[in-house]
Amino acid sequence: MVPTPVVLGLDFGGTKIALAVSDLSGRRLGTRTIDSRPEFDGASGGAAEAMARGLSAGHELLAEVAPGQELAGVGAATLGIPYDDRVELAPTFPGWDDLPFGRLVRDGFPGVPVRLATDVKAAAAAELRWGALADCDPGLYVNLGTGLAIAIVAGGTVITGAHGASGEIGYNLRSAGDVYVDADERTILEHVVSGQALETTGSARLGQPVTAADVFTMARTQPDAAVLTDEFVRELAMHLANLAIAVDPVRIVVGGGLVRSWDQIEAGLRRALDVAVPFPPELSVARFPSDAPLIGALALGVEAAGVVLGAEAFA
Amino acid sequence: MVPTPVVLGLDFGGTKIALAVSDLSGRRLGTRTIDSRPEFDGASGGAAEAMARGLSAGHELLAEVAPGQELAGVGAATLGIPYDDRVELAPTFPGWDDLPFGRLVRDGFPGVPVRLATDVKAAAAAELRWGALADCDPGLYVNLGTGLAIAIVAGGTVITGAHGASGEIGYNLRSAGDVYVDADERTILEHVVSGQALETTGSARLGQPVTAADVFTMARTQPDAAVLTDEFVRELAMHLANLAIAVDPVRIVVGGGLVRSWDQIEAGLRRALDVAVPFPPELSVARFPSDAPLIGALALGVEAAGVVLGAEAFA
Repeated sequence: MVPTPVVLGLDFGGTKIALAVSDLSGRRLGTRTIDSRPEFDGASGGAAEAMARGLSAGHELLAEVAPGQELAGVGAATLGIPYDDRVELAPTFPGWDDLPFGRLVRDGFPGVPVRLATDVKAAAAAELRWGALADCDPGLYVNLGTGLAIAIVAGGTVITGAHGASGEIGYNLRSAGDVYVDADERTILEHVVSGQALETTGSARLGQPVTAADVFTMARTQPDAAVLTDEFVRELAMHLANLAIAVDPVRIVVGGGLVRSWDQIEAGLRRALDVAVPFPPELSVARFPSDAPLIGALALGVEAAGVVLGAEAFA
Repeated sequence: MVPTPVVLGLDFGGTKIALAVSDLSGRRLGTRTIDSRPEFDGASGGAAEAMARGLSAGHELLAEVAPGQELAGVGAATLGIPYDDRVELAPTFPGWDDLPFGRLVRDGFPGVPVRLATDVKAAAAAELRWGALADCDPGLYVNLGTGLAIAIVAGGTVITGAHGASGEIGYNLRSAGDVYVDADERTILEHVVSGQALETTGSARLGQPVTAADVFTMARTQPDAAVLTDEFVRELAMHLANLAIAVDPVRIVVGGGLVRSWDQIEAGLRRALDVAVPFPPELSVARFPSDAPLIGALALGVEAAGVVLGAEAFA
C-alpha cells in the first residue's frame, strides 16, 4: 500500500501558532498549538525564533501523525500581509514585519508547493467555502483576536485589495479629529478594539496584569471592568455598522479568540446594527471561530498540492 | 432605409433630471436636463410631478432627435433604491420614496424593456466599464451631489449588496457617541457631507441663501465660508479613508455636482488618504463627472434592448 499524501497548514498569530495536518480531502489527522511568544519579551530575536519553532513543530507533527507520507503542499497564514521577503502591516508582533516569511516557509519544506495568505483572509475564505458565509454575497468576516481586521466577501471570493491590504481596519480613523494626523500620533482603532488593546488598557486601569479574556470575565461582576468592555463593544459597533452600511452584507460573521466572550459582545453589536444600518445584516459566530485561519491554511495547502476541494471538505 | 432603433436613458436626481437618447452603440443623439424641483416647495405632489415631467421630457427628446425610430430600451437611474412600487433610502427628495418608480417608467413607455438602477451604482458601472475605474479591482466611486453615496467595484462588477443598499454611506455613524442612537436622533453623515447639507448649513451660518457651489466660491475669499468647506472635506476624508482601508482600492474616483469645486476638495482628501491609509489609493475625478449616472442609464437601456456594448462605447 502506497502511503497517501498529506498537507500541512500553519497559522501564525500574534499569540499562538496553530498547525494541522490533513489528507488531500481536508480530513484532519492531527493538530497542535504553540505559543508565539512564550516569554512575551519583545526581544529582537522573538519573531525569528517564533517562526523557527512553528516550522519545527510542523515537522514534528508530520512525523507524528503522517510518518513516511508525502508532504504534497503547505499553506501558511499569518497576521499581516505575507511576501517572500517581509510581512507588511503586522505591528502587533514586533519584528514580524522584517521576517522573509515566504522564503522561510519554502526553505523549511524544500521542494514542496507553498501558498501564503493573510490569516483573516484565509479565515474568511474557509467560512465562505465551508462555513457561516457559505450563502453570503456579499458578506463580512470579522476577526477579534490579538489584532483587529475584517474581510469582505463578494461574488464568491474574498476581496484582497490592490495590495493585499483590504480589511485592515485596525488602522481606521475614529473621528474627524483623526484626519490629517499620522498613524503613530493618533490612537488607531486597533489600539482600542483588539485583544492586545484590552489587555493593555485592562492591566493599566484595573491595577493588575490581565488578559483580554480576564477583562471580559471581570466585567460580569465588576463595574470598572464593564466600562472597558462596554467601550470596546461600542467602538467596534461603530465601525462594523459603517462597514455594513457600505457593503450591505447578508451576514456578519465573527471569529477569533475573543469570540469566547461572545455572549458579552453580541447584544451590543446586534443593537447597534439594528439602529444604524438601513437593512441590518444577520450577525453570528463563525463556524470555525477558533481555527478558521488554520482551516483556510489547510485549504491553501491542498490547493498548493493541485487538488480542488469539494464543499463537503472540513464538514 | 429602416430607421435604426434607439434607447432612452433617464437619471432622476434630487436637483435635476437628466435625459439622453443614444443609438444601440451608445452614440448620443441628444441630451436634456430639467430641474427636479423648480420651486423647491417640498409640496406633497412634488415627487410625482417631477417624475411625470421627466417622463414627458423623455418623449419630447425622442420625438425631437429620433422621430419615427423604434425605442428599443429604457434605462432609469434614480437616487435611492428603485423598486416597482417604491424607492428606498431617498430622504433628500420628499415624497420620492412613495413613488411606484418602476411601474411609472414602464407605464410611460408601454411594451419597451426597462431596467432600473440606483444612480450611484449606474455611475460606478459606467466608470468601471468606460471611464476612470476601467482598470481598478477593487475601486471606489464616490458621488458628491445633492446627497452622498459610494459604490464599491470588485471583480469587474459593482457590489450591489444584499438589498441593493451597499454604498449608502450617507447613513454613516460619525463617532462612537452615535452608536445605539436612532438615525432620526443623530446627525447622520449626509447631514454634514452633501450638497444639500452644505446649502442648509451655509445658508444658516453665512446669513444668506446660498447653494453648495456658492459656499465653495465664497470659501476662496471668506474665512467663515472656508470653515464650512474645511469641515466638509475633513469629515468626508475620514469616511473615505476608512473605506480605503477596508477595501484597499486601486483608485477612488469622484463624480457628482460638487466636483465643480474639485480644486478645493482634492488636496484635503489626498493628504488625508496619504496620512491614514497603509497603501494610499489614487484619487481622481470621474471620467464622466457630471453625467456618469446618465451614461450608466443609457447603458442599462442598451442592455434592456438585448445588446452587449463594447468597451469603445461612449468613447
